[in-house]
Amino acid sequence: MKVAVIGVGLIGGSFALALKQAKLASHVVGVGRNAANLKVALERGAIDSIAPDAATAARGADLVLIATPVAQFPKVFASLSDASALITDGGSTKRDVIAAARKSLGKRIAQFVPAHPIAGAEKSGAEAASADLFRGRRVVLTPLKENSKASVSEVEAAWTACGANVSRMDAREHDAVLAAVSHLPHLLAFALVHDVATRKNSAQLFSFAAGGFRDFTRIASSHPEMWRDICVANRDRLLQEVSRFSGKLSQIKKLLDHPKKLEKFFAEARDARDRWIRSS
Amino acid sequence: MKVAVIGVGLIGGSFALALKQAKLASHVVGVGRNAANLKVALERGAIDSIAPDAATAARGADLVLIATPVAQFPKVFASLSDASALITDGGSTKRDVIAAARKSLGKRIAQFVPAHPIAGAEKSGAEAASADLFRGRRVVLTPLKENSKASVSEVEAAWTACGANVSRMDAREHDAVLAAVSHLPHLLAFALVHDVATRKNSAQLFSFAAGGFRDFTRIASSHPEMWRDICVANRDRLLQEVSRFSGKLSQIKKLLDHPKKLEKFFAEARDARDRWIRSS
Repeated sequence: MKVAVIGVGLIGGSFALALKQAKLASHVVGVGRNAANLKVALERGAIDSIAPDAATAARGADLVLIATPVAQFPKVFASLSDASALITDGGSTKRDVIAAARKSLGKRIAQFVPAHPIAGAEKSGAEAASADLFRGRRVVLTPLKENSKASVSEVEAAWTACGANVSRMDAREHDAVLAAVSHLPHLLAFALVHDVATRKNSAQLFSFAAGGFRDFTRIASSHPEMWRDICVANRDRLLQEVSRFSGKLSQIKKLLDHPKKLEKFFAEARDARDRWIRSS
Repeated sequence: MKVAVIGVGLIGGSFALALKQAKLASHVVGVGRNAANLKVALERGAIDSIAPDAATAARGADLVLIATPVAQFPKVFASLSDASALITDGGSTKRDVIAAARKSLGKRIAQFVPAHPIAGAEKSGAEAASADLFRGRRVVLTPLKENSKASVSEVEAAWTACGANVSRMDAREHDAVLAAVSHLPHLLAFALVHDVATRKNSAQLFSFAAGGFRDFTRIASSHPEMWRDICVANRDRLLQEVSRFSGKLSQIKKLLDHPKKLEKFFAEARDARDRWIRSS
């Protein structure tokens, strides 16, 4: 299979490396904004050649992965409007990606099978890519009514070859679920670090931050542009989550006057998390 | 040195193990509410004997560590009002602990040198204790004006023997700093998990939670009673932090309409965190 990867970062580079390791990809062509990063991808064997743009890369490809930050998807889809290849993506939001695809691909929309590999990391770039990134991780497909069964199966097979556990879901439901368990936590982590960093005594505060703070804020070391795009694309759902969480904080403020209820609240949270950790 | 440990959990057990490894403690007597936990502490060699209460344990001891949840400190101090030993503690809040000590110890207050080992973990109990828990970690002393230099030095020497980096600080400042970088993050993590766990679709939500969620919420697996006590003891500072953070969330909601500003916000947070990680 000839594969084109648009955006050879952590996700795109890992997809390429995994498909090669699975011997599913015979040639991978990469496209990207950053020449130095593409060079790393070449040196690491993630890609075999570089194309100047998505249209050129897609020519002759069997499968195209779009793995740029989601705000660039409209432009990429526009340049793929003549492509005959099957297209999938690595975007963390799905409604906006699908809307962009519909706009540019028109009747060719059946070629696009949307996907979200839930396998981020705070590292980014081809240097951080790994053939094992998707191993045991979830990849959610949000197929379109226009997709043929064969197309969905083919895209599913590619992600499965990467070692992923593939499931299917409605795009709206996907965006709502991810807003709660991924996008909101990222926003909270960025907010806490920003708050600490912009205080007069920030040096002192950081000097007393320990392991709990480090883990809580790990996701605040994530890629700012990528997360800007995710948050903007999923703005409506995220606003709901932020409002909901603010309400939760108001509830907790009141609980500080009721030690028994506060302990119950903490115990319920701990038990729920421990159950989740045990089962995952 | 004969040492009495009141509350032989993660902190108390680790203190005992570390002092024994450093050959500073010849005999450690333990006191606790949980007989099974004390048995584990005995079997692991953290303690050499068990006393029925703090008053009995302190008799003949050179150093007493109080390492129970902070709400029990008043009762422990009351039972130590006749003790002649030097006393230190492992409480995560300092103003309330000092107030309790003053109330019970009266003129003997000079014997108490408050300490906070910043070395928590989401694990608890004697089973989780380790002689290396404090190695390279910070221990903050918040000495009282009544403490003699010799007493502060002796307590500092004990924590230093555990491998800790000991520093000194005012108790009020300590509680303000820790509210921001420790108590607030714990509250946020408990709140997020509780929110997800109490939704109708919580099973689905947890099934899509990934590594970011796991690390962000690690501290929500912390000891509910201990954290209830910390939050109640530091209620005033924590309320300030929660209000401040709610304001930050309002700011972020507005930023969702300004992608460039949002990216700048994320980048500032990421850069601040990365600087901190590099320097720590």
